[in-house]
Amino acid sequence: MGLHLICGGAGFVGVNLARRLLADGESVLAVDDLSRGRRELLAEFDSNPNFAFNRVDCASADAVLATIKDAGEPVGHLWHMAANSDIPAGVADPCIDLERTFLTTFGVLQAMRHARIPELHFASSSAIYGDFGEVEIHEDIGPLEPISNYGAMKLASEAQIRAAIEAYLPRADVFRFPNVIGVPATHGVIWDFVRKLKATPERLDVLGDGSQQKAYLHVDDLIEAMLHISRLEGRYKVFNIGPVDAGVTVRAIAETVRDRVAPAAVIAYGEGNRGWVGDVPRFRYSVSKLTATGWTPKLGSEGALRKAIAEIALQEIGA
Amino acid sequence: MGLHLICGGAGFVGVNLARRLLADGESVLAVDDLSRGRRELLAEFDSNPNFAFNRVDCASADAVLATIKDAGEPVGHLWHMAANSDIPAGVADPCIDLERTFLTTFGVLQAMRHARIPELHFASSSAIYGDFGEVEIHEDIGPLEPISNYGAMKLASEAQIRAAIEAYLPRADVFRFPNVIGVPATHGVIWDFVRKLKATPERLDVLGDGSQQKAYLHVDDLIEAMLHISRLEGRYKVFNIGPVDAGVTVRAIAETVRDRVAPAAVIAYGEGNRGWVGDVPRFRYSVSKLTATGWTPKLGSEGALRKAIAEIALQEIGA
Repeated sequence: MGLHLICGGAGFVGVNLARRLLADGESVLAVDDLSRGRRELLAEFDSNPNFAFNRVDCASADAVLATIKDAGEPVGHLWHMAANSDIPAGVADPCIDLERTFLTTFGVLQAMRHARIPELHFASSSAIYGDFGEVEIHEDIGPLEPISNYGAMKLASEAQIRAAIEAYLPRADVFRFPNVIGVPATHGVIWDFVRKLKATPERLDVLGDGSQQKAYLHVDDLIEAMLHISRLEGRYKVFNIGPVDAGVTVRAIAETVRDRVAPAAVIAYGEGNRGWVGDVPRFRYSVSKLTATGWTPKLGSEGALRKAIAEIALQEIGA
Repeated sequence: MGLHLICGGAGFVGVNLARRLLADGESVLAVDDLSRGRRELLAEFDSNPNFAFNRVDCASADAVLATIKDAGEPVGHLWHMAANSDIPAGVADPCIDLERTFLTTFGVLQAMRHARIPELHFASSSAIYGDFGEVEIHEDIGPLEPISNYGAMKLASEAQIRAAIEAYLPRADVFRFPNVIGVPATHGVIWDFVRKLKATPERLDVLGDGSQQKAYLHVDDLIEAMLHISRLEGRYKVFNIGPVDAGVTVRAIAETVRDRVAPAAVIAYGEGNRGWVGDVPRFRYSVSKLTATGWTPKLGSEGALRKAIAEIALQEIGA
């Protein structure tokens, strides 16, 4: 079925995907511009003859095409995981999301067209939906009103992929990611809390009042879901991915991290139920379309959090 | 209320909007990169002291900011009508829609943020919806699956505007245009048929089998609708604009143009019910949200076609 090209291969999801594909005996070419991804996260695969890495900015179709030509075997699957993962940074400077989240999609699609790569697997986001309050969010809901530049550029990417399906692209999957946790962690609320407590073990400052409730999926379950969806029939498949529960509050996360890392710390909450511009306070995410196809996550939000907190504490403070 | 800045001011809609605003006594600064717009279409306004034109590529926020600084009075309203209007060209080369339809929106928004312009009025499109078959399309429908790069880049633009509302933009209107007809015509099915018949009065070749049915709005009604929506309450207003009827077929258009321009011509139809990649064969467009606010078009699809065919025949063949 050809080589698996992972764009954004040195990021959190890319590294976990590479590990899983290599374990299955597949060949993997990871590319990343290393703007946020880190080359050393892939070091564990360097001795594997089925693995290669190139530093590539996927916003340049020419650069993607060059690495495809040099790969030695045809690319069967392109996994587009490249994006700016720092949502507040994208709010402060919209050019970041334009270049790293949207123009990478544009470059990848141009390269796929020229190199005739048959299958695209795209990491989209629940952020494309915006704020539906208490309404359960299924894949066909409208109107789509993303409230962050990150969400806007993920929606823009989906739109461009859909038009490509009409014109030249044989197959595409769109995975609408939830909050995904695990290691190697490079950002996110747990990572943030662990690092804050490492710096000041007596105090943890939390953005917002802690009432924001979100569902979390462990990255191991996410990878399983992506591979499951990629094997389903269909030219253009769009799926929400997430746990089946309603999630946990930021307060519960803060307390669990505190108990694990610095039990004596005082937790100081901010005001309001939004942590930052573009943050959605509450979110009811339907994954019934996906579970109807036979997939279920091994861990719910609470289990995912406990596992990820242990993993991230080990990564950051070695204990 | 300040100057009206019209981006894409030398295009079909921009020229008609400028004429109407000037007739109302407003001040207008039209900008256009003249890639498809034509400077001479604005010549009728050059003697009006309330009118000015600058050649500007709106994809450059710096260029937009420079023209705003030189304007002499604050910009109160920015009308973003700049886009690639040639849909098949955008399918052949996606970079055209990226640069002229999406990056113009991105540049305009950056300029509005820096210059603190309070109101954006944006020409979006029914092409953001994709193909819903017989289902009536209201503003909140999902899923949004545009099938042309043009529609994809209009949806991408809407997403970016919605995120800007969350972060810094005080007010925005999103007008989802139907097929709009009238003069000065620079593209579109009537213009195409008239010019073909001018070249070969004995024969008219039609893409597709002629069964595509579409609703048409005359540009005079479109301008009224935009001004009406701009005066409604609300920070972020999204409206379909169109006639209230189900539209007319391409066959009816071809026959009406033939009867007007070259009655002896034979009409030769192609195959299939799509004229080109990205063309939607049938389209049921709901404008009930707009009519509920008190707006009604003066002309239905048939009336709009008759008026526009007479206007375009006069423009192209002087009779």
